[in-house]
This record gives sequence, structure tokens and C-alpha cells, in this order.
Amino acid sequence: MISRSVATGPSIWIDGSPAEALPLPDRGLDFGDGLFETMLVHQGSPLLLDYHWQRLTVGLQTLGFPDTFDHARACLEAACHSLASHPWVALRLTVTRGGAPRGYAPPADAEPRVVITAAPLSQDRRELAAPARIDWAELRWSSQPALAGLKHLNRLEQVMAAREAQRQGLDEVLVMDQSGNPCSVSAGNIFLASEGRLHTPALELCGVAGTRRRFVLEQVAPALGIPAEEGVVTREQILGADELFYCNSLRGLQSVAALGSTEWQSFPLCEALHQQYWKSLKC
Amino acid sequence: MISRSVATGPSIWIDGSPAEALPLPDRGLDFGDGLFETMLVHQGSPLLLDYHWQRLTVGLQTLGFPDTFDHARACLEAACHSLASHPWVALRLTVTRGGAPRGYAPPADAEPRVVITAAPLSQDRRELAAPARIDWAELRWSSQPALAGLKHLNRLEQVMAAREAQRQGLDEVLVMDQSGNPCSVSAGNIFLASEGRLHTPALELCGVAGTRRRFVLEQVAPALGIPAEEGVVTREQILGADELFYCNSLRGLQSVAALGSTEWQSFPLCEALHQQYWKSLKC
Repeated sequence: MISRSVATGPSIWIDGSPAEALPLPDRGLDFGDGLFETMLVHQGSPLLLDYHWQRLTVGLQTLGFPDTFDHARACLEAACHSLASHPWVALRLTVTRGGAPRGYAPPADAEPRVVITAAPLSQDRRELAAPARIDWAELRWSSQPALAGLKHLNRLEQVMAAREAQRQGLDEVLVMDQSGNPCSVSAGNIFLASEGRLHTPALELCGVAGTRRRFVLEQVAPALGIPAEEGVVTREQILGADELFYCNSLRGLQSVAALGSTEWQSFPLCEALHQQYWKSLKC
Repeated sequence: MISRSVATGPSIWIDGSPAEALPLPDRGLDFGDGLFETMLVHQGSPLLLDYHWQRLTVGLQTLGFPDTFDHARACLEAACHSLASHPWVALRLTVTRGGAPRGYAPPADAEPRVVITAAPLSQDRRELAAPARIDWAELRWSSQPALAGLKHLNRLEQVMAAREAQRQGLDEVLVMDQSGNPCSVSAGNIFLASEGRLHTPALELCGVAGTRRRFVLEQVAPALGIPAEEGVVTREQILGADELFYCNSLRGLQSVAALGSTEWQSFPLCEALHQQYWKSLKC
């Protein structure tokens, strides 16, 4: 039984056992050859777990990993068991293709590793955060249809976008694709509201198919009778939107007060969606 | 003093000390937030070390790392000291942005880690290998001018390209950029010879600026009086080339006997360049 405390920093498990270090070599470090999920765990239960597993499964198949699903699930259950006393925990589950000799080609007998890190969160996640101030990023996401949508370990572009936000003292930056169409913020998907409808960029060339994006599209907006669709979203649509918000697993929905010099004063739709979001999560 | 044997597998050092595992969390694993160099070490001396350091330095600056150069150099020297008894060693030097709390934004006080792995090579690297059989890859490299040329840790595209070669029983695959122009193989840069001149694709949008590519352009070809230039290279130029070869640090120059159904029978220019390559290396 795993009983390591999470009181003083992130707890870490590798393949189900408490750990402090990753055995080397590991293709996750060498090449980013792996995937991850960032989960919000409430009293030991990961929220929207099915969505996380489904995205991870697609990723494992796309990268040609051996079947790792049962192992990952057992590792997560063991970790969550020891986290039940915490109201809110940020949990990251990483699957790497494990150790291998030198070279990009993966070994036929790869043995993936499951690394879980967990850190308690002090704030009640059900509170809607103050509206964010963001701006356009200089960086654009690269186009890679073979990997678009997956939450793989190659996240240097996100790091660079987050650095832009950091340098400018912003909460986030809005990143465009190579065509100049808005795609997402550095750590979340975007939605705009216009004439009572929600629009979010399609993710065929870049971006991560966020679990909360899917949740809004499939459950939250429909529960309120709000049409929601994905497709091409232009800069002009964003600038003319009635409301703009982004979302990720730890933050939920985050309204936007300013995108550069464009400002929004009220957020009735985002607030209604936020209420419904937690209602639909039954949390 | 480091005295760990490299006889039975890769030797590993972290920040200059023998190690078997990477302390977690580490942004190298989490996001691929780091860089690496693959060096060929001959009797304890890394070949073309200046080129490796120069590329690494550009990468560290681009990613906004604190100055890590002296630390990396000290780590490499310590490792190489213990490798001097081996004629040939493949050494990988990885610099990650080190540990940090959750989130893409790098910490202001990042403390990069230097991970070195080394494995002896049995074959004399000065022998020209048999001509390779390759084919076009289905995958295309994504366009990211902000990262093009760097040898960063986000190498999932290379893994996917290498999987294509593996599945087809090929030595390599030739990967195009998003415009459909040939860029590189999965693990090396390409050159074509035509009418006594060498051409290699420019790397403004994708690809890794290989140390051996630079060596051929700046030293090997000039020593033989062969004009060599970088620029746009088309599929048609490749298919009509007199010779085609690729290069990387461990392999040196590698002639190509077949690209799909296109075949080459003799490789006089590549053989002459190979001779000069080792002569210029004084090795």
C-alpha cells in the first residue's frame, strides 16, 4: 500500500511504486517519446477520467506503443488511493516508451513506464477565477497533422509561448497556427461566444484536444441549450466576440477581460457555463 | 574521479557524478525542455567539439536557459577522462532545464541538469559503410522557424520517421518539409551532388543543423575544391542527382544506393569526401 505523504511537495510514483528518480536511459527524456495527462483529482477521484483515458489511448495507438492501458490504470488507482484525504490534487500521469539503446527507432519490445506526480492544490477549484488579461503570442504553433490533438511530451512550443506570457506579465498568450488563425492559449483551449453560439478552433493541424474542450462541446453547452461547434476561427471573429474564454483541466473555465487592447466587461455566458460545468461534473 | 566502466552498457553521469536515474520532476522529461548533442568520442576526445558547443550555445540562448556552458564543459571533460581507453564511444550530452513546479512557464531560477550517457562502439568509424537503401517518408517535418536547426529534446517526429524506416526494412527515410521539399533523413542531413557541386537543404523552417553538415559545407568540400551550398532543394533535383548521401556525427558520410525505385550505382564523390572527411578530422 502506498502511503507517502503529499504534504511537502509533489509525490512521485513510477510503475506504481514510490520513486524519486527516473531510471535512465528513458525515451521520454531522450526524445519526448511519450504522452501525458494532467488530471484534477477531487477527494481521490480524477474528474472526467474517461476523457483522459480515451485521449491517452488514441495517443498510445498513434505512437505505436504496446498496450499500456491496464498498467496505467492500475498505477493511477494506487496513486489516487493515497490521495483521498486531499480535497484537490493536480495529478500528472506520464507514459514513456521506457528504456532503449541509442537511436530514434523504438525497440520492438518496448516496456513503457508510467510516471505519476501529484501535488495538492490549496484553492477550491469550483471558484471562478478573476477574468484574465492575455495578448497575442509572437510564436505560432507548427503544423503537424500526424500529432495534432495528442498530449505528447514534445511541449517546447508551449514552454516558449508561456515564456512570452511570463515576460509580458500576462496571464496567458493566444497562439495562432501557421496560417495566422487563432488556435489556443499556451495551456488551454479557447472558445468564443457570438450571438449565443460557441465556437472553438478545429485541431487538425496543431493544438491539444483538451478534455475540458470536449466536455464543453459535448456536455456543458448542450445542457444549457447553447450551440457549440468547432471549425476555423479567425482573428476577426475573436476580436468581435461577445465573450472569450479558455479552459483546461486544473482551471476549468477562465474568462478573458483583455486580449491586447481589446477588452470585455461582462461575462454572463462564461459564468453560466462555469455553473453548469461543475453541475455536470457532479462535484 | 569517475571510474565507472562502460564495458557492459551505457555509462551515465548527471552533473558530473555517476548516476543511474534522473531526479524528478525534471522539465526535460515533462516537456522536452532541453537540448542534446550526440558526439563521437575517439580515445577520449570528442570530434568537432567546437561545432557541438556552438550549436548547444545557440540552443541554450534561444530557449532562455541560464548560462550552463562551463558546467556542461566540466561534465563532459570528466566523462571523457574515463572514456580514454575506448577507441570509439557514442556520447550523448543532454541539458535539461532541471526541476520545477508544475506548469509550462520556466522558473526564473532554473538550475539546468547535464546528463551524459556513453556507450562504446565496436566498429572503426573510419570505414565507409555500404550504400544505404532509403525511401520517401509519409511524415513531413512541421514548420517552426523559432526552433529550426536546434537539437532540442522534442524529437517525436524523428521517432515517427524512424518507425517508418523500421516498418519498411529500410536504412532510412527521406523526409520532406510542409511544402513538399526534401529536408533530411530521420537522423542526418542530406547532400546531393550534381555537376560537381554539392547542395543541401536550407534549415530555416525545420530540420537539425547537423555538425557534420556544417563540416562538409565549411571544411570537407572546400578542401577538395568542390562548391557546396545550402538552399531550396526539390524532389526533382534529388531524383536527378549524380549522387546522394547523408551524414551524422556517429556515421560520418553515408552514400545512398536507392531512394525508392531510383538507384545509384557508383559513389566516387561521396568516397572522395569520406576520405577528406577523416583527413580533415585528423583522425
